[in-house]
Amino acid sequence: MSEVRFELVGAAGSARAGVLHTPRGPILTPAFMPVGTAGSVKAMLPQNVRETGADIVLGNTYHLMLRPGAERIARLGGLHVFMDWGRPILTDSGGFQVMSLASLRKISEEGVRFQSHIDGHEEFLSPERAMEIQRQLGSDIHMVLDECPAFGADEGEIEKSLGLSMRWARRSKAAFGIQPGRACFGIVQGGTFPHLRARSAIELQEIGFDGYAVGGLAVGEGQSAMFATLDFTLPYLPVDRPRYLMGVGKPDDIVGAVLRGVDMFDCVLPTRSGRNGQAFTPAGSLNLRNARFADDASPLDATCSCPACRQFSRAYLHHTVKAGEIIAAVLLTWHNLTFYQRIMIGLRAAIAEGNMSAWISGEAYKLL
Amino acid sequence: MSEVRFELVGAAGSARAGVLHTPRGPILTPAFMPVGTAGSVKAMLPQNVRETGADIVLGNTYHLMLRPGAERIARLGGLHVFMDWGRPILTDSGGFQVMSLASLRKISEEGVRFQSHIDGHEEFLSPERAMEIQRQLGSDIHMVLDECPAFGADEGEIEKSLGLSMRWARRSKAAFGIQPGRACFGIVQGGTFPHLRARSAIELQEIGFDGYAVGGLAVGEGQSAMFATLDFTLPYLPVDRPRYLMGVGKPDDIVGAVLRGVDMFDCVLPTRSGRNGQAFTPAGSLNLRNARFADDASPLDATCSCPACRQFSRAYLHHTVKAGEIIAAVLLTWHNLTFYQRIMIGLRAAIAEGNMSAWISGEAYKLL
Repeated sequence: MSEVRFELVGAAGSARAGVLHTPRGPILTPAFMPVGTAGSVKAMLPQNVRETGADIVLGNTYHLMLRPGAERIARLGGLHVFMDWGRPILTDSGGFQVMSLASLRKISEEGVRFQSHIDGHEEFLSPERAMEIQRQLGSDIHMVLDECPAFGADEGEIEKSLGLSMRWARRSKAAFGIQPGRACFGIVQGGTFPHLRARSAIELQEIGFDGYAVGGLAVGEGQSAMFATLDFTLPYLPVDRPRYLMGVGKPDDIVGAVLRGVDMFDCVLPTRSGRNGQAFTPAGSLNLRNARFADDASPLDATCSCPACRQFSRAYLHHTVKAGEIIAAVLLTWHNLTFYQRIMIGLRAAIAEGNMSAWISGEAYKLL
Repeated sequence: MSEVRFELVGAAGSARAGVLHTPRGPILTPAFMPVGTAGSVKAMLPQNVRETGADIVLGNTYHLMLRPGAERIARLGGLHVFMDWGRPILTDSGGFQVMSLASLRKISEEGVRFQSHIDGHEEFLSPERAMEIQRQLGSDIHMVLDECPAFGADEGEIEKSLGLSMRWARRSKAAFGIQPGRACFGIVQGGTFPHLRARSAIELQEIGFDGYAVGGLAVGEGQSAMFATLDFTLPYLPVDRPRYLMGVGKPDDIVGAVLRGVDMFDCVLPTRSGRNGQAFTPAGSLNLRNARFADDASPLDATCSCPACRQFSRAYLHHTVKAGEIIAAVLLTWHNLTFYQRIMIGLRAAIAEGNMSAWISGEAYKLL
């Protein structure tokens, strides 16, 4: 099986365009990964996710380990077969969701013990178990287990947490071992403290990973603190490995991060917003619940070719959102994922053609 | 615009196969019409409804008049444009839903006053208003307003209700007027009383309709009473007009009614069941919530080519039903509608080929 290999194909300032080659297909970067939490990109069939332009989706270790269970998915042929997505899948380590969803968490050097938010049964996640689960799922890109300190933690707490995350990163990499055709990414932590981020980036490279994520952002620090953190963190990461900003974000978060040199993103925003009646358009975000759309015969976004925009009016979307029809969630999710992928297409083209500043100053970006 | 015209193409005993020609396309009969209550066949995109084999869908006057409103749909170009379904649409008159969903109903000779179940505002539905709404929606087949007596009403109540329904049928037809390319169907009432059904069928023919529905069944009387009512009612209906059994039903209800000479059906069962985790298969009805499917790698129905059966395992359907994923509703609805249309295809072929009894006694029917 061929290796996972990152190829840079263009740069514009700090922004990079590339291809992450994997045995399951290429991932064009900058890439947005739709979130398929529990084995489904919510409200979408997998072929429709692909039609939006996605090269890769994300699966959540936490959700899948609890239900239907990683061993079960392995018996059923792995996550790709289970959810009928033949292209690459990145799985997180479960750490973030344990912190945000599970109850009665008890963190030790060994790992984290917690209760399932679904049925309360006790589970244990260690670096080794997190990597085992991702292997059972058949994930193409495994993420190390890290501890995600709560937003607002002080420097001492962040530093202590970082120490644990780095020891867990080393154990994760050892547990990952050598898996041809699969990649393992480390996760930079350290809050908004430059020296801790630098230390984390350097320690991870000593371990050696196929890619480097920036974690612990988009947790409430605000866009300017996030961008500042990227500004002082990314220079410590190797140029020849993909960089993944976890859980980000709004369109302008993504554009700003790409400008700073980030290659990969995931976020529930386009899918969750779609289920809540919110649409991203070049004219800004629209809440389709708003009564002003009740008689609006125009398409949601005249520049978009997704089914929501090609087949229906804003009035229809308004009506189906108000009536709680499933088709509203389907159409708005489809549109939002299409919109996000169009941003990525625009960014990749602008970087490859070296006209990033023109793209940024042009209509396409101003209207995001 | 061409007329609506019913062509009989085959018969086997009392069962008939035909084509209801309309300007928006042919409807092959026996036909099953998926229910698109509020401008959407729930959980389905219109192109996917068509892919299941549906020639026509049903829209509910009651739901659409309350939200988003018939005048609004007319301004937006009609129901076909609104919901992006270019093929025929049959609309009911709203009478049945007023009886089952609205509160504070007050029936008079003039019509029925009621409160919306959505926001409590008062509405009025008369035969003339019901026809006006259906015209505003742009429906291809309009149904007369009738009164639907509650199941268990005695003969005197049924007879009194029937009198009102027949007067309303006359007013409905007058209000429908002449609309080239559109059809108006009368509705036979009369409970399970042969002389009342006969009287209703004869009176409707005196008024003259493009098709005749049998209403007031599948309300709790049981299959044998329903079949008996068809047995003594259908002989009073003209051979050269389509016959529509409203709100029916389970697969074996449909087969039994087709054997007796019914041409058209509608029912929420395949769509509603799909949203509830239930699938119709040749091996019987399956509840995908059942834990026995958790490790079942086989397809839902190996004989079916819908996306649920072609792309996923029973284990995946079980998991997504349990997890409340929208994809479960989408896939099971798609499958159930496909299954219903396969029954109709089988019935039409068996009738056209004159081997109805072979089909009935064969695998296909026994396994329904």
